[in-house]
Amino acid sequence: MHKGRLEAFSDGVLAIIITIMVLELHMPEGADIAALREAAPKLLTYLLSFVFVGIYWNNHHHMLQVTQRVNGAALWANMHLLFWLSLIPFVTDWMGEHFAPLPVAAYGAVLLAAGTAYFILSRVLLTAHGDDSLLARALSRDVKGVASLLIYMAAVGLALFRPAVACALYVVVALMWLVPDRRIEALLEAEAAAHPSA
Amino acid sequence: MHKGRLEAFSDGVLAIIITIMVLELHMPEGADIAALREAAPKLLTYLLSFVFVGIYWNNHHHMLQVTQRVNGAALWANMHLLFWLSLIPFVTDWMGEHFAPLPVAAYGAVLLAAGTAYFILSRVLLTAHGDDSLLARALSRDVKGVASLLIYMAAVGLALFRPAVACALYVVVALMWLVPDRRIEALLEAEAAAHPSA
Amino acid sequence: MHKGRLEAFSDGVLAIIITIMVLELHMPEGADIAALREAAPKLLTYLLSFVFVGIYWNNHHHMLQVTQRVNGAALWANMHLLFWLSLIPFVTDWMGEHFAPLPVAAYGAVLLAAGTAYFILSRVLLTAHGDDSLLARALSRDVKGVASLLIYMAAVGLALFRPAVACALYVVVALMWLVPDRRIEALLEAEAAAHPSA
Amino acid sequence: MHKGRLEAFSDGVLAIIITIMVLELHMPEGADIAALREAAPKLLTYLLSFVFVGIYWNNHHHMLQVTQRVNGAALWANMHLLFWLSLIPFVTDWMGEHFAPLPVAAYGAVLLAAGTAYFILSRVLLTAHGDDSLLARALSRDVKGVASLLIYMAAVGLALFRPAVACALYVVVALMWLVPDRRIEALLEAEAAAHPSA
Repeated sequence: MHKGRLEAFSDGVLAIIITIMVLELHMPEGADIAALREAAPKLLTYLLSFVFVGIYWNNHHHMLQVTQRVNGAALWANMHLLFWLSLIPFVTDWMGEHFAPLPVAAYGAVLLAAGTAYFILSRVLLTAHGDDSLLARALSRDVKGVASLLIYMAAVGLALFRPAVACALYVVVALMWLVPDRRIEALLEAEAAAHPSA
Repeated sequence: MHKGRLEAFSDGVLAIIITIMVLELHMPEGADIAALREAAPKLLTYLLSFVFVGIYWNNHHHMLQVTQRVNGAALWANMHLLFWLSLIPFVTDWMGEHFAPLPVAAYGAVLLAAGTAYFILSRVLLTAHGDDSLLARALSRDVKGVASLLIYMAAVGLALFRPAVACALYVVVALMWLVPDRRIEALLEAEAAAHPSA
Repeated sequence: MHKGRLEAFSDGVLAIIITIMVLELHMPEGADIAALREAAPKLLTYLLSFVFVGIYWNNHHHMLQVTQRVNGAALWANMHLLFWLSLIPFVTDWMGEHFAPLPVAAYGAVLLAAGTAYFILSRVLLTAHGDDSLLARALSRDVKGVASLLIYMAAVGLALFRPAVACALYVVVALMWLVPDRRIEALLEAEAAAHPSA
Repeated sequence: MHKGRLEAFSDGVLAIIITIMVLELHMPEGADIAALREAAPKLLTYLLSFVFVGIYWNNHHHMLQVTQRVNGAALWANMHLLFWLSLIPFVTDWMGEHFAPLPVAAYGAVLLAAGTAYFILSRVLLTAHGDDSLLARALSRDVKGVASLLIYMAAVGLALFRPAVACALYVVVALMWLVPDRRIEALLEAEAAAHPSA
């Protein structure tokens, strides 16, 4: 089965998730600085969620580049990931309006579920490829992925007592992924050098 | 006529349907458990609709994979399917807010219409292919498709008296499709084995 | 310049136009037949607009199939078409809520502007192709296109006095296009028969 | 790394940005000329923003056409551009409702940030290509790009005192880009003539 349509569909869903959040950035009620300041928490939450969806798009894009084929299980594992990502606008809206324990914990819980779904998708793809495949090498030593899940778990618990600290942890995870990671690119280049005709 | 643009357009519409429903998940009005509990019925309805749209995307994807060409009639049969699917957010919103006989029946009626439109699309595609085409073999013995339509019909009638039972039937149909069905994949593999150069 | 990205972008915009109108189909306020009846005018207007966007997608798809190349002018002519089509949700919402002279005329005016923009796009594409190109042959004798524009003009004027008659004319145009027209398909088949290797 | 998916994702986001603004064009509250006149400022702001997003799509499309490859840095530079563009619906809504110093300045600030992000993206792409690449030649003498940034800066400052003048400057920039610029097309044609087999 070709991976093209899975990529295209995921791109569509991610593009919409990233964009419809703007519809929930309701226009400031007034035209002065005070009105803009009131909108600030929602704008900052939007920025954070935009970065998270961007990270997912980026990682998804890289992982699929070293994937040769997808099966029915991968289609559903991908749909499962998209489900959790699709809830990001919902929790973004909630946390942006109510910066309180439960909404901040819910935000982290959705990130944790999406991260877990991504991990499942990577394992489903892996079983369809050999252990010495490009994908297997790309996914080995996935320190960042595991660290993110652990930080999310800690943050969800912390959120119920110290929402600000939990939110700082979300920012830490986002920054961790923004740091360039040339692992897959390096793999692809090495592969291209080894098989110049491909 | 190439099928690529029909696939891309359908993907776009399905991606948007699956995503805009989130805009109708209005943020809980408060930051406590009670507020989240109030949002629960809408979240569960969203989950059910997400699964249905996911099933349609999956089946559409599989059917188009074994389709060689599309004609003008297929374009309109596909548009007809997209019309009914596009009403899913509307009935999801209604049923999520009012769990009562009419909204639950309306939800089932839209699923029934979409299922029928999918059946029509499959027949339109079939007439453009031979009886011994890959598509014809993939569509033969479509027990699940017919069973779904019958269950929807029963559920729409039942909804007027027992909405909860009707809703349980929708869940049954969704679960029925989530069970892996390797029919088309097996066909494609057999075909690839028979014509290795393709 | 390749036409692929122009097609993809137009598909994206059309898919969104066709879908976001559902967001303006606000949930019936209640769970009985009366509530559903109140939503009926909006549902019917949605159906009409869905069909119009579907017709545009279909025609756009066919025209681009016989187009070999696009230039900068074609990109803007296409953007101009998308602008008018993007206003369809706005006038759909207005006419669905207020079935009165001005909204019905505005609906027709947007259809007229979109039809004119489509005509301009076809002429821009034509100047980049020869007179004996596939595109030129596909666009010759475009009776339906011209008739639609004339009917829209009449309907916009009529709407100010008899909105129901104007609306009936919109339905007539929609039906006119739903009748199958195998002109371009026949051309493509003839072309394929003449150049079997293509 | 292939540029196809970056193009597709950007197209998706741009298509959604251009379209969801319509959801903020709330239906006129009434069916007479006065109601339509009240909607006029929002319609005009929508038109301006539509043109800006159209210009970005057009330029992005042209720049990517002469781009051979994208790296991880380009993915993020592109995401950064999409972030600022995604804020256009927000500031469009605000300026359309409140034509006052701060909203007009905010509109210009988002345009300035998007223009800067576009400039950064072009430089990131450039470093991955040689100095005598097609891309380098296409981006040399980018007078319009630099002029736009300078006008935006002036307009943001002016907006605080004379919002109407600032808005006129935005219109000037938009018109400047609508004037056809055959630079990249000419380059592609020259290239095609030099390497007819490509």
